[in-house]
Amino acid sequence: MRHLLSTDGLDAATATAILDTADELKRTLLGREVRKLPTLRGRTVITLFYENSTRTRVSFEIAGKWMSADVVNVSAGGSSVGKGESLRDTALTLSAAGADCVVIRHPASGAAHRLAGWLAETGTSVINAGDGTHEHPTQALLDAATLRERLGGLEGRRVTIVGDVLHSRVARSNAHLLPLLGAEVTLVAPPTLLPVGVESWPVTVSHDLDAALPATDAVMMLRVQAERMHGGFFPSAREYAIAYGLNETRLKLLPEHAVVLHPGPMLRGMEIASAVADAPNAVITEQVRNGVHVRMAVLYHLLAGEGEKS
Amino acid sequence: MRHLLSTDGLDAATATAILDTADELKRTLLGREVRKLPTLRGRTVITLFYENSTRTRVSFEIAGKWMSADVVNVSAGGSSVGKGESLRDTALTLSAAGADCVVIRHPASGAAHRLAGWLAETGTSVINAGDGTHEHPTQALLDAATLRERLGGLEGRRVTIVGDVLHSRVARSNAHLLPLLGAEVTLVAPPTLLPVGVESWPVTVSHDLDAALPATDAVMMLRVQAERMHGGFFPSAREYAIAYGLNETRLKLLPEHAVVLHPGPMLRGMEIASAVADAPNAVITEQVRNGVHVRMAVLYHLLAGEGEKS
Amino acid sequence: MRHLLSTDGLDAATATAILDTADELKRTLLGREVRKLPTLRGRTVITLFYENSTRTRVSFEIAGKWMSADVVNVSAGGSSVGKGESLRDTALTLSAAGADCVVIRHPASGAAHRLAGWLAETGTSVINAGDGTHEHPTQALLDAATLRERLGGLEGRRVTIVGDVLHSRVARSNAHLLPLLGAEVTLVAPPTLLPVGVESWPVTVSHDLDAALPATDAVMMLRVQAERMHGGFFPSAREYAIAYGLNETRLKLLPEHAVVLHPGPMLRGMEIASAVADAPNAVITEQVRNGVHVRMAVLYHLLAGEGEKS
Repeated sequence: MRHLLSTDGLDAATATAILDTADELKRTLLGREVRKLPTLRGRTVITLFYENSTRTRVSFEIAGKWMSADVVNVSAGGSSVGKGESLRDTALTLSAAGADCVVIRHPASGAAHRLAGWLAETGTSVINAGDGTHEHPTQALLDAATLRERLGGLEGRRVTIVGDVLHSRVARSNAHLLPLLGAEVTLVAPPTLLPVGVESWPVTVSHDLDAALPATDAVMMLRVQAERMHGGFFPSAREYAIAYGLNETRLKLLPEHAVVLHPGPMLRGMEIASAVADAPNAVITEQVRNGVHVRMAVLYHLLAGEGEKS
Repeated sequence: MRHLLSTDGLDAATATAILDTADELKRTLLGREVRKLPTLRGRTVITLFYENSTRTRVSFEIAGKWMSADVVNVSAGGSSVGKGESLRDTALTLSAAGADCVVIRHPASGAAHRLAGWLAETGTSVINAGDGTHEHPTQALLDAATLRERLGGLEGRRVTIVGDVLHSRVARSNAHLLPLLGAEVTLVAPPTLLPVGVESWPVTVSHDLDAALPATDAVMMLRVQAERMHGGFFPSAREYAIAYGLNETRLKLLPEHAVVLHPGPMLRGMEIASAVADAPNAVITEQVRNGVHVRMAVLYHLLAGEGEKS
Repeated sequence: MRHLLSTDGLDAATATAILDTADELKRTLLGREVRKLPTLRGRTVITLFYENSTRTRVSFEIAGKWMSADVVNVSAGGSSVGKGESLRDTALTLSAAGADCVVIRHPASGAAHRLAGWLAETGTSVINAGDGTHEHPTQALLDAATLRERLGGLEGRRVTIVGDVLHSRVARSNAHLLPLLGAEVTLVAPPTLLPVGVESWPVTVSHDLDAALPATDAVMMLRVQAERMHGGFFPSAREYAIAYGLNETRLKLLPEHAVVLHPGPMLRGMEIASAVADAPNAVITEQVRNGVHVRMAVLYHLLAGEGEKS
């Protein structure tokens, strides 16, 4: 694997290999006080973030450092962008400066793919850490890792993804990855918050959350991106919380073994009630924990593989 | 010791143990060109700063790195705060992402204590690097280290803390730590810049700086926090400098052996004259130097102790 | 060598020694997957940037990390500057906190020299990473490294530097370094964009780009600093691009072996046509690559030399 740009197009064997490596890393590290492997010593990972994100940047930074990579952070505020440099020139510069891998978060859908294209003739790998409303593949992989761990596998498991699917790269990446790994995915969203072309996704669509929950093994709540919801086509915050928020009453509709996921940051009281976020079947901090191991696994597969780079 | 949240409540044995470790680290490292110990290899320290502070963040970062810890910086500008996440969820996220220790600077008094409460069931330690107008315990510890070094001990030494005590977490932390270690502390401040409840602190209060100086072994000048002083209750900058600034005339009132401290950043010409800041008995850069060793010692006691975590 | 503040005043032997070390480091590292040398283990490098610059900061950070130094970043946004601290006090603080080297980028010409003066009695080295419109010596060194590599040497080579010389620290540093190493330098600029006193520089001045190009071995395009060009004395963007931009027609005026340099970030279409920036004789990414090795070499000469510090 040369880059990780999307789950759409990923094959099941590669996805499973990443998840298996993440499992192994987790088992290896949990037994230790000293969480440090020499695996990526002398490799350089640059995080290039054009949008703020504590959790994703920190997760990648820790993943790199635990494998002894040199990690360098670049954020839009301090970048040459303010001096009018193009993204392409920034990418070529970071590659020439020694980046073995650029982890990019960018507000434009497709930015990671373009970066990979520009870096085709270099040895630099690209990881998409979220591009616009397009994809966030490591989030989907860490969700899959958490579901595998909690549900004992993904084959035949029913996962309901709820909320603002239109603007959610998390939903998009999961809607492709989870079916690839055998899960049955249902999207529950108001009609105005579903993307054009959702019919071609390997999922079922519903508008009725209460009807979907009893047959669900895992419910994944999406963050409401209020900053993207202007104008009369969208539900108000209050309408949204009533129709699509996961409150304590709705939690009881779930089977007892079902788990609740959220990619964070959560808006407690909006898409998820505070008591639900802290309930025993919420696996939200477990997702964060698995995120580090999944990102270590991705870095490993991109940077440490022999003969694997194509 | 599990956390370091305040000096109020710290016991003398623990404070002395930290200072002794700092001394030992200083002696060990000063003899070397290579300032690097393997002590915290594989431990992860996250600095979480909701207020700007070069000196404190850099000091903790260097302390961690010299002990081979992985140090990850998070500042409010780039954090999930902008996306509406609560401090509690940020804390749980950083802990789940692998933080062995979170070093927090926050504008709200009590923030560090709350963080420690939220992280009670995790293995993550919290260090208060300044919370509102409450405490800044590592600053008091580095002040104590500097005083021990320069005055040969703290028992019976008379320390005068001057200025805006009301808004100063530095004053508050010192007012509890220094008496604990045997020093006699006098606060000199205008009445409107003294906190309610100062009567219960183990200190003497005075409003006359000139009267206090001749009997002083160490004078600690506080930064004027002009940004917090609005309205007619407070002295003007000029009034403040005249009544509470340490100028060259006042410097001569001090005994010859006495030392001058300032936590920085200094406003030269305001609370301290430029010539005083550069005088031979000013120990301001020595405070900075000791800050790194003291923070190494705190990290050591929190993260490297066996069986010490309670 | 104690500091690297400017190329004006540098002697040829020192410059050549740095370039030779950079060459050697490049050859050593290119043969490896693991780019990590133990050379500066236990040394602390602080980057202190009062202006944004991705490429320079990242280049220094990677240079330090590849030599195993601890690198700590300080940017003006998060610094004590906002609290009114002077640059001198910031410098003394960073030195006392353990900096073996401060790499400073500052908008004021002369800032690096002043820092070095203030730190004279400490063991801290200063590297000028760009001060106002004054100098940027590591940029000139990386340009020299690239020219040596591509042209087989600098002795007798003709280098044309084009554009806004007045505001360019890159031009100033090259105008002193390249002649020192034997090159013949011609500056081509509109009269209003030449500095007072250019007559004393070891260069030739011209206003006619088309006349200069056929006799040129290397052409170095400068970034147009539009933010500094106010008022009627300066050419408009369009006039500038026509008279001083390097377009495809002009590229053909160059001898076939000639190379094109640009310090970046580029404004494609302004000072350099996009096709020219991507042409085979453009060595712009090679400059970035050499930048890391040159900065490693500078850090090595400042921090690892025995008996070399004066």
